[in-house]
Amino acid sequence: MKKEISRHSYPGSEKIYLPGKIHDIQVAMRKVNLTDTVNIVNGKRIAHHNDPIYVYDTSGVYTDPNVEIDLEKGLPRMREAWITSRGDVERLQTVTSEYGRMRQNDASLEEIRFKHLHLPYRAKEGKEITQMYYARQGIITPEMEYVAIRENLQNEALGIKSHITPEFVRDEVACGRAIIPANINHPEAEPMIIGRNFLVKLNTNIGNSALSSGIEEEVEKAMWSCYWGGDTLMDLSTGDHIHETREWIIRNCPVPMGTVPIYQALEKVNGIAENLTWEIYRDTLIEQCEQGVDYFTIHAGVLKAHAELVGERLTGIVSRGGSIMTKWCVSHNKENFLYTHFDEICEIVKQYDVALSLGDGMRPGSIHDANDRSQFLELDVLGELTEKAWAHNVQVIIEGPGHVPMQKIRENMERQITSCHEAPFYTLGPLTTDIAPGYDHITSAIGAAQIAWLGTAMICYVTPKEHLGLPNREDVRNGVIAYKIAAHAADIAKGHPGATVRDDALSKARFEFRWKDQFNLSLDPERALEYYKEGSKNDGEYCTMCGPNFCAMRITQSLKDCTK
Amino acid sequence: MKKEISRHSYPGSEKIYLPGKIHDIQVAMRKVNLTDTVNIVNGKRIAHHNDPIYVYDTSGVYTDPNVEIDLEKGLPRMREAWITSRGDVERLQTVTSEYGRMRQNDASLEEIRFKHLHLPYRAKEGKEITQMYYARQGIITPEMEYVAIRENLQNEALGIKSHITPEFVRDEVACGRAIIPANINHPEAEPMIIGRNFLVKLNTNIGNSALSSGIEEEVEKAMWSCYWGGDTLMDLSTGDHIHETREWIIRNCPVPMGTVPIYQALEKVNGIAENLTWEIYRDTLIEQCEQGVDYFTIHAGVLKAHAELVGERLTGIVSRGGSIMTKWCVSHNKENFLYTHFDEICEIVKQYDVALSLGDGMRPGSIHDANDRSQFLELDVLGELTEKAWAHNVQVIIEGPGHVPMQKIRENMERQITSCHEAPFYTLGPLTTDIAPGYDHITSAIGAAQIAWLGTAMICYVTPKEHLGLPNREDVRNGVIAYKIAAHAADIAKGHPGATVRDDALSKARFEFRWKDQFNLSLDPERALEYYKEGSKNDGEYCTMCGPNFCAMRITQSLKDCTK
Repeated sequence: MKKEISRHSYPGSEKIYLPGKIHDIQVAMRKVNLTDTVNIVNGKRIAHHNDPIYVYDTSGVYTDPNVEIDLEKGLPRMREAWITSRGDVERLQTVTSEYGRMRQNDASLEEIRFKHLHLPYRAKEGKEITQMYYARQGIITPEMEYVAIRENLQNEALGIKSHITPEFVRDEVACGRAIIPANINHPEAEPMIIGRNFLVKLNTNIGNSALSSGIEEEVEKAMWSCYWGGDTLMDLSTGDHIHETREWIIRNCPVPMGTVPIYQALEKVNGIAENLTWEIYRDTLIEQCEQGVDYFTIHAGVLKAHAELVGERLTGIVSRGGSIMTKWCVSHNKENFLYTHFDEICEIVKQYDVALSLGDGMRPGSIHDANDRSQFLELDVLGELTEKAWAHNVQVIIEGPGHVPMQKIRENMERQITSCHEAPFYTLGPLTTDIAPGYDHITSAIGAAQIAWLGTAMICYVTPKEHLGLPNREDVRNGVIAYKIAAHAADIAKGHPGATVRDDALSKARFEFRWKDQFNLSLDPERALEYYKEGSKNDGEYCTMCGPNFCAMRITQSLKDCTK
Repeated sequence: MKKEISRHSYPGSEKIYLPGKIHDIQVAMRKVNLTDTVNIVNGKRIAHHNDPIYVYDTSGVYTDPNVEIDLEKGLPRMREAWITSRGDVERLQTVTSEYGRMRQNDASLEEIRFKHLHLPYRAKEGKEITQMYYARQGIITPEMEYVAIRENLQNEALGIKSHITPEFVRDEVACGRAIIPANINHPEAEPMIIGRNFLVKLNTNIGNSALSSGIEEEVEKAMWSCYWGGDTLMDLSTGDHIHETREWIIRNCPVPMGTVPIYQALEKVNGIAENLTWEIYRDTLIEQCEQGVDYFTIHAGVLKAHAELVGERLTGIVSRGGSIMTKWCVSHNKENFLYTHFDEICEIVKQYDVALSLGDGMRPGSIHDANDRSQFLELDVLGELTEKAWAHNVQVIIEGPGHVPMQKIRENMERQITSCHEAPFYTLGPLTTDIAPGYDHITSAIGAAQIAWLGTAMICYVTPKEHLGLPNREDVRNGVIAYKIAAHAADIAKGHPGATVRDDALSKARFEFRWKDQFNLSLDPERALEYYKEGSKNDGEYCTMCGPNFCAMRITQSLKDCTK
């Protein structure tokens, strides 16, 4: 295992921490410092100060030069004191899952194992510990105050009024319109919130398949996606050493992490879907709860009765979980065990505050199949399961889209809100056309921006390699930035308080030829600088696009003098 | 001057020509041939034929291996016989513009000059020759029939009913809701139509600035953008040898070409806006009309009275033409000469059937400035000018957007339709956020897809280099594909007849693991193949994304056997 990780820092920026008012918390944020605006008036240099801009920061302590990173020890366990001080959890003497114990006792794994293992926490017998439970009791947890401050950036200081207070966060979590994924066994993660009255979030997927990358690459890729702005991370690994890879990632991951437990369960039965059992799945859930996975995708809405509808489709089932569970149902002629055991699933995950992401096994894989019976019948089932989970105080989000042409996007959002009782929607894309493999980050950013504007709380990124292969580092970067754009465009369209502050600051810098500020305020400062340098043969007062005589901004600047 | 051009061909495709029914025309199209669907049933190989797919083709004869290309001679002059047979044009004995004659007589330009110059055509005294004029006379020209066939692909053969007939084309051109840019001096171009009841078109910009690329690069870049799908091409060159570069491009350009004549006029007065005169501009118009430019961007809506409104803006004027004309108005304290001479402009261009693209000098350069007074007051002026041009039977399109957040896009489209009497809208992007320099092909593809869906007829591409420098070949390719995606997503959303045929064929190929067909049907087959190969370690029945056990499509295929 590689002990070093590449640490990047955002140019022109510093890490700052804002204190809480209710709790003793420090909310991480990125402060972008700007240069002065300089005008020459009558031969005199007159400088005007530009206030720094505060930016939502998903990179964790990796971008704090004052924090030493040791991958073998993992990140600081910020939330551990908050969790233990509530007095409703206990530390176990050993891991509960059979598989977890087996892996711990396997000496051959010594080499690749994360060394500084922590014993897991679990709710004390009879205690409820989910953020939803607390919210329903009227309690504002440190996690809730943290996200309230985080979502506001420094809008208060700018005189921008925001609806987002700790009380508002609590109320949104209480009614299920938002979730704070926060497994008590992942205290390293910085709290964040997913809900349509908050900033649009983006999820990135990593994961090796049997054919490709190894542990080192996955950990590095995870941090890389957080650096560019991924709000959560799903580990979709399906190859060897899933258990060990996951431990390394969680211990070093500053954002909530999700998984699809059926993938690992399937590995345990050598890839033969028919051999899956509830017992194997149950053990996998507990194994992952105790490692610290923050949310599980569960394909419990895939029903036996819906299998025959697949024949109506052009591209059948394209969700891996959906296809596995359908195959199981059909070959056993039995109802999906995730559906029949759903209450037991809730009983397990509530002991760790793992949120459920109800998977859309019938996600359309082509625009031809969008909004069809398979898809919407499943959505109704997910609504039924949402109510079940909420009865357990388990936090829920609903997975959706895939390939959906623009004119069919709105119906998805409206039906989801109705069928699923306003539980947050979490969609892949949607891709708005099928004809651009190699560019599906773009086909889907177009759809993601629209569905997020309509109310989707979190969008799952798509990389340029979608349909073709696993993404490498550059693909991850391109996917994340495309989705940051979609999410931000939606925040602006929704009128999120202060959403345009960064745009306005960047545009002002652009108009004043403060190039560095323009780059530092952009989503990808390195790329902007790289492109600028490619064509740079100028004195900074124009760019190669138009040349000196044709620079509209320069001419407009000169107009000011004419009209004075 | 380089005599060779890189010729590319679309894999798995052939060039075909469909004959007209009214006129003796051959409409170029690309036919993508597909492999059979093969199933193994009870050990027997059963093959099903897949029909070829017909694709709109902007690449001209460059992708026809039967046509020899000689850049020094230029492309075949397909439309010349159509034009001369109408009997309403005459061939001039020499070029009319002073500047054009001066350049012809300048021996120092011999080296870089296009050799096989053709003498220009012009309408005979008292004759009207625009497509709009013909349409209003009830005439279906070969150009009109050509675009009707072109827009239909082979939908008729597929049993898809389309509203697009030669009569419909004529009626749309007659009422000004669509234009066919077709200068009689650019007979090399294949006719195409711009209007909201047709396929959404995309324009690409090329052009050297004083600081960058040369003639060879520009010609090659022009062909490159047509190869990837650019429907029209604007040459925005501002450096030396504009006249000669343009000649080379037009003679070898299979799509309509536009320019912004004020750029060249400004060169003629050494970049000093105040020194521009109507006479210089007028000579430039004639020079370019006779070279074969198909449409002119004219910033005639920039009025003196609006100059002071610019002070309300965060980023002033970002249109080059807009800033030049505003500067001229302010420094002379006179009304914009393009506005005061607008009828004369129409009198000139109608003799060659050059269309007018009424420029938006007040295009917002930041989302802060979107939909402001400057922008919409100018739009009203453009509406007034539209009616003037139509009185001359001059074809018109209206330029719009720039930076516009999603929630303000609809107002742009609705106002444009009302203010400009349904003349086609032609928009840059819009960019839906300002914070992603380096990725503005994506910020703007999001906006372009939406505005095109709402009714914009042509979208002007943005490359990743926007705001940073001039695009290179890869940037052009990335920009074009992003915009092909936006245009196609809009065609689907608008329900254009047959728009999903290609999507469905590609998705079927994907589901059946016919990889080559999937690539050949995609917007960029080369990229798709390249990405696939990067991860390729498999037998073709799955990809590296999921690996063999987790391939949903493979599992679904196997389900068919279960459920039978």
